Amino acid sequence: MNNLIEKIKGSETIVITSHYSPDGDSIGSSTALYHALRSLNKEVYIIIDDVLPQNLKFLYNEVTINKSDDIKLQNYILVSLDCGDKSRLCCSQSIKENAESIINIDHHASNDSFGNINYVDSKASSTCELIYNIICAIDENLIDKKIGKCLYTGLITDTGNFMYSNATPSSFVMASNLINIGIDKQNIIENIYQSNPLNLVKLIGEVIGTLNVLEERIAYIQVTKEIMNKYNVDFNDIDGIVNYARDIFGVEVGILFKEKSPNEIKVSFRSKSYVNVNEIAGKFRGGGHKRASGCTINMSLNDAKEVVLRETIKYI
Amino acid sequence: MNNLIEKIKGSETIVITSHYSPDGDSIGSSTALYHALRSLNKEVYIIIDDVLPQNLKFLYNEVTINKSDDIKLQNYILVSLDCGDKSRLCCSQSIKENAESIINIDHHASNDSFGNINYVDSKASSTCELIYNIICAIDENLIDKKIGKCLYTGLITDTGNFMYSNATPSSFVMASNLINIGIDKQNIIENIYQSNPLNLVKLIGEVIGTLNVLEERIAYIQVTKEIMNKYNVDFNDIDGIVNYARDIFGVEVGILFKEKSPNEIKVSFRSKSYVNVNEIAGKFRGGGHKRASGCTINMSLNDAKEVVLRETIKYI
Ligand SMILES: [Mn+2]
Ligand SMILES: [Mn+2]
Repeated sequence: MNNLIEKIKGSETIVITSHYSPDGDSIGSSTALYHALRSLNKEVYIIIDDVLPQNLKFLYNEVTINKSDDIKLQNYILVSLDCGDKSRLCCSQSIKENAESIINIDHHASNDSFGNINYVDSKASSTCELIYNIICAIDENLIDKKIGKCLYTGLITDTGNFMYSNATPSSFVMASNLINIGIDKQNIIENIYQSNPLNLVKLIGEVIGTLNVLEERIAYIQVTKEIMNKYNVDFNDIDGIVNYARDIFGVEVGILFKEKSPNEIKVSFRSKSYVNVNEIAGKFRGGGHKRASGCTINMSLNDAKEVVLRETIKYI
Repeated sequence: MNNLIEKIKGSETIVITSHYSPDGDSIGSSTALYHALRSLNKEVYIIIDDVLPQNLKFLYNEVTINKSDDIKLQNYILVSLDCGDKSRLCCSQSIKENAESIINIDHHASNDSFGNINYVDSKASSTCELIYNIICAIDENLIDKKIGKCLYTGLITDTGNFMYSNATPSSFVMASNLINIGIDKQNIIENIYQSNPLNLVKLIGEVIGTLNVLEERIAYIQVTKEIMNKYNVDFNDIDGIVNYARDIFGVEVGILFKEKSPNEIKVSFRSKSYVNVNEIAGKFRGGGHKRASGCTINMSLNDAKEVVLRETIKYI
């Protein structure tokens, strides 16, 4: 980490970017690092060429987030946050190519160390935890409520509020320290977990009606295109519904079937403790992790359900 | 805490009891203390004269929990856990009266220090956190995976898995230490949060259909007696549904109307950040806390909704 800190300290202009489809950890780590570097009197820019999620406004309303075309840059280093792959960086090709050097800070196991300097730790809960370590190493006193708020957000969004196995002892110590600094934890909770769109809640109620359990260990839910239109809910906002299937007593695998278009069914798999759903998704040219995976099937909704369920039964 | 520890050390026979309607914190603290005292070669009994929740079986299947009439006791001290009021203790009158002395360990603000020795801290997240402090003070090495599992369970069930404001810096440090000891956190999560009864999930889907928003700041859901019968769901298991109402974007107060019988409507209130729902419930001879309260109204469901909503509007 020392050469990373030296590099940052020795640079005048620092550009921060992150992955497409920004989330709590990418926005949280970007804004936290932004505030810290501003305290060190650096010229700092955050560039994200994508739509920013509304529920993270409480983080990014305190900074300017630019698009690649907004600014002319010279003599800068590029800090990549929470991004395992250079091609997924959410900024223009020219910003990547013209950087004096790239610092790659990430916690994805798939990260291929594409930076000139790399701080990649796949055991870390979140990129926010790595940024916390870096800022503490520069100067613990830099971490104030504003930075703490950003870091806490990424920590909880990447760990399911400490629910997932990636929440480690050091994650809990970090949380403890940030609360001691005086962050308004309840306000963060309200923004992240208590601001559900009414339409989405209504949609969830209706699609729970399609919940079915197979062989006591597989539960599945379907969301048709028609229902998404009825409630005007975005395709990307309904992924969490798969948890309603998995989190039933006795169920090992939860599956969500989403009808993106009449012959394009997106399937999400979640498992609790022993089924490797990465393998199941792999059978349909998809992938992911052992406990969370997905695939796309070009069939009708009913046909997709049939082939997927038939395959899943083999694993329970 | 020192005289408490001396008292325990000096006693041969120790009886542990807790409040009626056992929950994660009462069972978790009872079983944790049981294991620790057994390690100190004490004769220990847990007495709970009530039905034990199925989802906590992973804690109490490793100990014997007795009913008051099961055992004949002489020369014992009584340890009361997580109970603010002597009359709510879940054991017989004779067990309370014949104890040589009563040790009262609790975190409820309403606790009236009814014990001969009292360790009451209303700022503590849970009684489990107090038991953690006590066991650490006796001997840190006593805390093993078995005890850690019990303590972690009470910590998360009383803090909504660190979501509520009672999760303090010391709660997070305690979590960190227990995970370092090697508790199987994911197994606890599975037992507590991923074992929902199928019928309850189905009922939730249906009653979300009754979700309504009033003046953009009040959301309410109703559960009729008929629907509870249809899904064979117990009246006490549906309280959490009120969160679906509160956790909507822009909503400040969530209300759940439960039809216990045709003219007995139980009302639960939850607020996010500024409405004191304790006051609203108080208007109907109910009570609770600022952010969570309840009352009972002896009217028809429709009439109860009307009077409660009319009152609630005044507060937003
Ligand atoms: Mn991340
Ligand atoms: Mn408690």
